[in-house]
Amino acid sequence: MEKYYELDTASVINYVNGKLDFFAKDAEYECLEIGDGNLNLVFRVNDKKNDKSLIVKQSLPYVRAAGEDWPLDIGRGEIESRILQIEYKLTNGLVPEIYLYDGDMCCMVMEDLSDYKIMRYGLIEHEIYPNFVEQIADFMVKTLLLTSDVVMEHKEKKDYVKSFINPELCEITEDLVYTEPFNIGARNDMEENLVEFHKKNIVDDPKLAIEAAKLKFDFMNNAQALLHGDLHTGSIFVNKEQTKVIDPEFAFYGPIAYDIGALVANLIMNYLSSFYGMQEGPEKEKYCSWMLKTIKDTVDVTKTKFLSEWDDVVTDKMAKKEGYKEFWVDDVFINTAGVSGCEMTRRTVGFAHVKDLDGMTDAKARYKAKTTNLLMAKELIINRADYTNGQKYLDLIGKYCK
Amino acid sequence: MEKYYELDTASVINYVNGKLDFFAKDAEYECLEIGDGNLNLVFRVNDKKNDKSLIVKQSLPYVRAAGEDWPLDIGRGEIESRILQIEYKLTNGLVPEIYLYDGDMCCMVMEDLSDYKIMRYGLIEHEIYPNFVEQIADFMVKTLLLTSDVVMEHKEKKDYVKSFINPELCEITEDLVYTEPFNIGARNDMEENLVEFHKKNIVDDPKLAIEAAKLKFDFMNNAQALLHGDLHTGSIFVNKEQTKVIDPEFAFYGPIAYDIGALVANLIMNYLSSFYGMQEGPEKEKYCSWMLKTIKDTVDVTKTKFLSEWDDVVTDKMAKKEGYKEFWVDDVFINTAGVSGCEMTRRTVGFAHVKDLDGMTDAKARYKAKTTNLLMAKELIINRADYTNGQKYLDLIGKYCK
Repeated sequence: MEKYYELDTASVINYVNGKLDFFAKDAEYECLEIGDGNLNLVFRVNDKKNDKSLIVKQSLPYVRAAGEDWPLDIGRGEIESRILQIEYKLTNGLVPEIYLYDGDMCCMVMEDLSDYKIMRYGLIEHEIYPNFVEQIADFMVKTLLLTSDVVMEHKEKKDYVKSFINPELCEITEDLVYTEPFNIGARNDMEENLVEFHKKNIVDDPKLAIEAAKLKFDFMNNAQALLHGDLHTGSIFVNKEQTKVIDPEFAFYGPIAYDIGALVANLIMNYLSSFYGMQEGPEKEKYCSWMLKTIKDTVDVTKTKFLSEWDDVVTDKMAKKEGYKEFWVDDVFINTAGVSGCEMTRRTVGFAHVKDLDGMTDAKARYKAKTTNLLMAKELIINRADYTNGQKYLDLIGKYCK
Repeated sequence: MEKYYELDTASVINYVNGKLDFFAKDAEYECLEIGDGNLNLVFRVNDKKNDKSLIVKQSLPYVRAAGEDWPLDIGRGEIESRILQIEYKLTNGLVPEIYLYDGDMCCMVMEDLSDYKIMRYGLIEHEIYPNFVEQIADFMVKTLLLTSDVVMEHKEKKDYVKSFINPELCEITEDLVYTEPFNIGARNDMEENLVEFHKKNIVDDPKLAIEAAKLKFDFMNNAQALLHGDLHTGSIFVNKEQTKVIDPEFAFYGPIAYDIGALVANLIMNYLSSFYGMQEGPEKEKYCSWMLKTIKDTVDVTKTKFLSEWDDVVTDKMAKKEGYKEFWVDDVFINTAGVSGCEMTRRTVGFAHVKDLDGMTDAKARYKAKTTNLLMAKELIINRADYTNGQKYLDLIGKYCK
């Protein structure tokens, strides 16, 4: 902590120039603090003249709102920047580039994504992202397949497993995604008119409980690949051309289905909020059919890329046995459906909701969207073995959304 | 290394008395070096007068036969003694008691098991161990169930996972058990008259290859419980009264089925060597029927103990959901059959054999035992879903051994 001091909009420019050869000599600086400044200080440093900019994110040693009484592990940015660097390399740039991590200052200097938007907010405004599916499928296939035992040298993979064990953040998922939503109480949070519906359809279904339990222990025990661990639409920056995945703080070695399932679930929830929430007309038609296609393609394109990438990259001799690839991919997508169901459940009745659904202003439409979401979630968990391609999801959605 | 010196039969007595209050003042010492002295020095220190004894096992910093050119990690005994201490506590004494681990001297001081015999040698001599099943079932249920996520606090379990990651020794299992026996070449080692049989029945069966691959990745990814990791009959000390499990150097977090399956396979191979190798008569009849019962009971008693222990010890809220216990136990025993099949295969055609089969002197009987072993192994791997109770194993054995 001796070399640590808190940056401000004045000192950050000198700090960056002392560390990196990034800005031109004739730079005209503009510097803004853009974070909420509670856990981290986030600065955007922009050279207006040459149109070059970067982001500096510094961890604070305490929660600022609470003062020094609430200390934080100041080194938390180190794991995050390490993961981003791994993912950057694996995906050829589908995460922000890290220019520097400085352990003394607990500072991450990284690519500026000001011309991107958080995908969840873009989707809530019914924006269409034509390149999204291709790029997110690439992100998932590269980060997941290439960090698994079918590709990596096994001892090196075990070193990764060890360094990315993440007990605190995994516990959040174990509780909030895989436990509380299937029970009554704890931190569950739902609209009053869902309380009975939740109890009857989710909590009191013994079959659902067993299947959710299986998925929970798969999450905890199956160290299959280096997951992002929180791959919902709020962790993705997009614009019309490009996709960048951010915030890998939940990263750990877990089941590949967890990343894909979280994403698919959040797309489905956006679809429900649009189908039930948008005014009838050509805009709704256009957006909803794009989103349906996006859901289908997220499953199918990712699956196709896994299958086609496999032969080029797989090194394990047993993984190369004929037919194992198809088993492996189907298994991933079966559990993807199960994870989607858990994510859809917890975002409706659990502690953390999604703005797509909660932001619907018409109470009746919102009730319809949320109850439909729960019923589809349940189907996805219990009958996940059926959901091995994108059309199955559209069939399910079509059954409910008429 | 400053405080390290090599013990000998004279200095070991002073060493022990300087560390432990174990021997009486009037002790009459007898001290023997009983190990092969290549990787470790092993001493038995005995007080003849009071009939008290202990074992001192000191790691050497190099392979003695090869001289100082082949250095070894001298701290390897630390993990072993830590595991033994955990298992001792969990099983109420079904492993040797560790009196002391001394990191400076790389010394483990432990319970003397001179009145026990390595089980494999006892079984080869057709000895019967009436208490074995109850005790080994206890060992497996306690060490496996109690270190899994259904019982342990999840963050503490992740700490265990992390500290017991074991890349070098896991690699041995991944290669020798799960890869080489299903392929041609590498370190495989088989009798000449098995070469064609192996190729035709094992290597060239595409279905077997996929199922073995599934089991391999379950072994590598499924961090379910703290395994012994090498639980064959050569890692078990027995006598008529008592069972003690030794040598947990392969310990790591893996699938519970791996321990149970290794054991069951080694019992089956001993049965085959006895059925085909013993002279007809009452001794054979008695021994073989005891061994059949032992195989059946190892499965059934262990299963029953898992089920009955479950309700007392399980803490995870989702694991407690009605019906999950039965799913969990069946899943363990399905994979147990698969592991048994892999172990039986590799002990016949792979690098490391078992003396039960290799020691059969009649070449024809040995061929019959080994080919039967391979055919049963294949059935256990491919149709493992059928093997959820002990009678199924007896039916399989009965089909071949007539």
